[in-house]
Amino acid sequence: MHERIASDLRRHIANGELAVGSLVPSESQLGEQWGASRGPVRQALAALRAEGLIGGGRGKPPTVRSRAVAQPFETFLSFSSWAEGLGRIPGQRTLEIARRPAGAEVADALELEEGEPVVQLLRLRLLDGTPTMIERTTFVWEVGRMLFDHECDSGSIFAFLSGRGVDLSVARHVIDAVAADAADAALLGIAQGAPLLREQRITATASGRPMERSDDRYRPDLVTFIIENSQQAGRPALARSPLDIQESTS
Amino acid sequence: MHERIASDLRRHIANGELAVGSLVPSESQLGEQWGASRGPVRQALAALRAEGLIGGGRGKPPTVRSRAVAQPFETFLSFSSWAEGLGRIPGQRTLEIARRPAGAEVADALELEEGEPVVQLLRLRLLDGTPTMIERTTFVWEVGRMLFDHECDSGSIFAFLSGRGVDLSVARHVIDAVAADAADAALLGIAQGAPLLREQRITATASGRPMERSDDRYRPDLVTFIIENSQQAGRPALARSPLDIQESTS
Repeated sequence: MHERIASDLRRHIANGELAVGSLVPSESQLGEQWGASRGPVRQALAALRAEGLIGGGRGKPPTVRSRAVAQPFETFLSFSSWAEGLGRIPGQRTLEIARRPAGAEVADALELEEGEPVVQLLRLRLLDGTPTMIERTTFVWEVGRMLFDHECDSGSIFAFLSGRGVDLSVARHVIDAVAADAADAALLGIAQGAPLLREQRITATASGRPMERSDDRYRPDLVTFIIENSQQAGRPALARSPLDIQESTS
Repeated sequence: MHERIASDLRRHIANGELAVGSLVPSESQLGEQWGASRGPVRQALAALRAEGLIGGGRGKPPTVRSRAVAQPFETFLSFSSWAEGLGRIPGQRTLEIARRPAGAEVADALELEEGEPVVQLLRLRLLDGTPTMIERTTFVWEVGRMLFDHECDSGSIFAFLSGRGVDLSVARHVIDAVAADAADAALLGIAQGAPLLREQRITATASGRPMERSDDRYRPDLVTFIIENSQQAGRPALARSPLDIQESTS
């Protein structure tokens, strides 16, 4: 029960319904809403306090301190679960799935011999129906070949592959900026040369064997990355944040 | 002693001298190099193992696993200490320091009344002499006024202010991409419209009172942000990474 209460509050904070600075519902309100006793309600609030999402306590009513939920591993890898966790509607259009021999750069990144077969996927990702990100992913053959039997537009490929036992344990993401080329511009409905926020990723097994690499390009007026750190906390909290089109600054 | 050994190894890993996959110097090599006994050498290696920087152990010789040092708070806020930690030479040219009345947007971000005085700083940051980043920082008056007495080109402003007792405890960074405007282009020596990696930051006291906000624009062919996460580790590790100009992909 306390986990359901905590994850519901996390979702409301992440999607902005509980804005930073606003009061968190009181213990008695939460108890009534969930038909729960004080124990689980307090446990849920303590968890959010430990995560830095809410402040207050010691007599003061708790308020929302931060929107940057440190994302669990799977929502950081999966566009679908990330969007769903925020109460937004994810969408995808698979434009191409192809078997190709690995070129020099791909072979190097995935630790293959040049010419070994790989599977390359080109997908347009949507948020509430708006083209938001272009995903260019290359899988090693033993993983990618499973995708030819899969309806890639039916949902999260990360969830599908994890369910088939593929070990996707460790990821490394390099964030930079890149100008939209002609293909990017046409797919995202923006001007050629417009700046895009790029995430290049390599995902590997627990023992470090690369399984996929991806080049994901986001419209920076729709998605940003948020980092929060403090002198107290050892490691930073990190989140992707969707922006409303109206909030757009570019 | 163990801290000096560990931080020396961290620096060699971060700047690429000890590449990912390569063997870490053996306990006896490290002992000789530092004139140290086994105790501190083992403590240093254990610390790096706990940080995820090196793997191996249990009979296997340790190898470098990751270059993304989860940066301590001050190197994440200070361009100077970040560059120095990597063995690179930081530089700065302060182009302007001005007292101005806060406009609506600044007042909102720093929780001031419109028209209250603020101090705005425009600095070009260099890495090994190459213009790399443009920093546009606004300080609340009580903090910023100290800078009029300070030689801003002499080093880290973060270190100077911390030394004067300014509480800079909590930071929130929003990462996106933006097209270089005419001023950016002239300062960085790039084409107008070229994509820049932008970090917008608000730094606050431990109790959440905003002290400064900044708009930092990096050449994405010179600096990227790296994130590493895994299903095991709770929070991601994060680092800024400098790129050699020759490695440039854009």
